[in-house]
Amino acid sequence: MTEVATPRRSRLTPEREAELYAAVLDLLREVGYDSLTMDAVAARTRSSKATLYRQWGGKAELVVKAIRHGKPGKAGDIDTGSLRGDLHALMTLEDDRTLERNSALMRGVAMALHRHPDLREAFRDQLIEPELAGFRRVIRRAVDRGEVRPDCPALDFLLHMMIGGFATRALLDDLPPTRAFLASYIDAVVLPALGVRTDGHPTD
Amino acid sequence: MTEVATPRRSRLTPEREAELYAAVLDLLREVGYDSLTMDAVAARTRSSKATLYRQWGGKAELVVKAIRHGKPGKAGDIDTGSLRGDLHALMTLEDDRTLERNSALMRGVAMALHRHPDLREAFRDQLIEPELAGFRRVIRRAVDRGEVRPDCPALDFLLHMMIGGFATRALLDDLPPTRAFLASYIDAVVLPALGVRTDGHPTD
Repeated sequence: MTEVATPRRSRLTPEREAELYAAVLDLLREVGYDSLTMDAVAARTRSSKATLYRQWGGKAELVVKAIRHGKPGKAGDIDTGSLRGDLHALMTLEDDRTLERNSALMRGVAMALHRHPDLREAFRDQLIEPELAGFRRVIRRAVDRGEVRPDCPALDFLLHMMIGGFATRALLDDLPPTRAFLASYIDAVVLPALGVRTDGHPTD
Repeated sequence: MTEVATPRRSRLTPEREAELYAAVLDLLREVGYDSLTMDAVAARTRSSKATLYRQWGGKAELVVKAIRHGKPGKAGDIDTGSLRGDLHALMTLEDDRTLERNSALMRGVAMALHRHPDLREAFRDQLIEPELAGFRRVIRRAVDRGEVRPDCPALDFLLHMMIGGFATRALLDDLPPTRAFLASYIDAVVLPALGVRTDGHPTD
């Protein structure tokens, strides 16, 4: 405790790190952020709290890193040649089981995000911004192809539409947000809002 | 405890009921559904737990009744002659402070809704269904006026769009969902998705 600049004694192996992150996500889904304690993470993963703090600094960082660890992170590779193709491909990065688990995660952190500015900042920097960057690339290409007008007002609300549909599915329909649901939502809501026709007949 | 059919001894006055509901909503915003106890409600409102259980049966019903109590419930009166007018009017039923407080409430119950089927059922019957009924009347008139095609695919997702925009505002923008935000969201997302033009220039 008196050695200020003690070097990290042992880096975790990738397997051990993955195991720790999985335990954090399970706890998050089970009890939510506020009730998740470093003690519980330490107990469930048979590690010491000192190790957790040394590796992650604190709960907010550990939680955000754990969520981020599960992300496919291949959004940057997507380029199908159409906005509809790109948005559908973005949705199929994750299978239905992962989507349902992510939906449970979001519920687990939603209230805490509002209460804890440190968590909110880490969440925005490490999760929302990279997501937005992926969408921005997809949109830029759609605008370049002439599919979407650059001044289309719905462009400001792309994530609100997408995350909103995802987040409200369980609440409104008592069903998990599957890939099939997200695909219909993109065709029925997101593309028409962006002025992209998908159903073959004009909307007016 | 042995008298099975004891009549309710004293109905609460409307003022007392309003006071109790306000305390429940405060607690819900502060600690969330899972940590809200009947003990805490009793303590804060200086009432007995027996009274609470006698009047409301349990926590789920008390919470849903408390949320419902704060609803303006004037959606049925709205008929401005256009879909845009009706949707904007629906949004202005509540002022910015109330919208922000509702946003905090939603965060407070989101996780619990998933976990507690009794809460979810009461929530759906007493809050979502009446909301949906109001939207359905507004939409039926818009279809009758020829503003929206009856087979428009976005009609299935009206609440997902509206509640989704509302729910994601704080998370994505660190700003409360004000009336001004919801008005722009209706114009930029909801009406275009429904095939209703608002910006004066065609989308293609």
